[in-house]
Amino acid sequence: MAKRTVHRRAKEYRWEGVEELPYKEDQRALFKAVTRQVLFSDPELSGELRYFEVAPGGFSTLERHRHIHAVLVLRGRGHCLVGTEVKPIETRDLITVPPLTWHQFRATAGEPLGFLCMVNAARDKPQLPSAEELAKLERDAEVAAFLRNEPKA
Amino acid sequence: MAKRTVHRRAKEYRWEGVEELPYKEDQRALFKAVTRQVLFSDPELSGELRYFEVAPGGFSTLERHRHIHAVLVLRGRGHCLVGTEVKPIETRDLITVPPLTWHQFRATAGEPLGFLCMVNAARDKPQLPSAEELAKLERDAEVAAFLRNEPKA
Repeated sequence: MAKRTVHRRAKEYRWEGVEELPYKEDQRALFKAVTRQVLFSDPELSGELRYFEVAPGGFSTLERHRHIHAVLVLRGRGHCLVGTEVKPIETRDLITVPPLTWHQFRATAGEPLGFLCMVNAARDKPQLPSAEELAKLERDAEVAAFLRNEPKA
Repeated sequence: MAKRTVHRRAKEYRWEGVEELPYKEDQRALFKAVTRQVLFSDPELSGELRYFEVAPGGFSTLERHRHIHAVLVLRGRGHCLVGTEVKPIETRDLITVPPLTWHQFRATAGEPLGFLCMVNAARDKPQLPSAEELAKLERDAEVAAFLRNEPKA
């Protein structure tokens, strides 16, 4: 944020003065139909607050990294994968993604899934799974169902 | 947060495993009818995310500090004071409180005002206004009306 604006209004889930970054479809289908808005990023802040919105049927990047994700669901419902755990999530739920833990958010409920994600401003780059790591994840039946967009619960 | 729980559900605006810290009435009436819940605080996170809820007619502490507040209104409507600016605010609006700037949030709309506030984990203590500083703030008619809980717009 070049300029520090005191008050920025929202129109639904779009914010004034905040660029909406559309995600392209990923070739390996590691993410789909997600947009990103950086709500707070400032030299004086050691954290950043971003808003991600996943369209129905879409999903965030399947990734892991050293830094933690602190997530609050702002809109809708869906499922998340954290490690090997698949959870149904809904508005206002909190999700903590520990270091170096594979994770993904999916809009499985026929409605958009929007979530805030707080991260450290100084952080490592996400790692994507290798073919071997993906195969290993898919050995767990519940995880495999989640990755096919067919979570069980 | 002693233990890192991956998924914490919400019941309305109360979170599992999060203590609700009620604010006592302040003798000098610098705050009233506010509760606080710390949603994310972790040794691996350089930011903290808290949720404050102000009951109708209540207000957060009138204070200033070196650290920034990054606020997202999660629930309801109200007004805020930032410096000498009084703004009507509503759900999902973003408010940035710059360093050393007097600020206060008031639930002026007959409904609760709930907001997320991201701060640096390492931060200075808030300063309260002296009688002289309060008198100086009240010299501005708009600010004085806000502090009487009668904002104009």
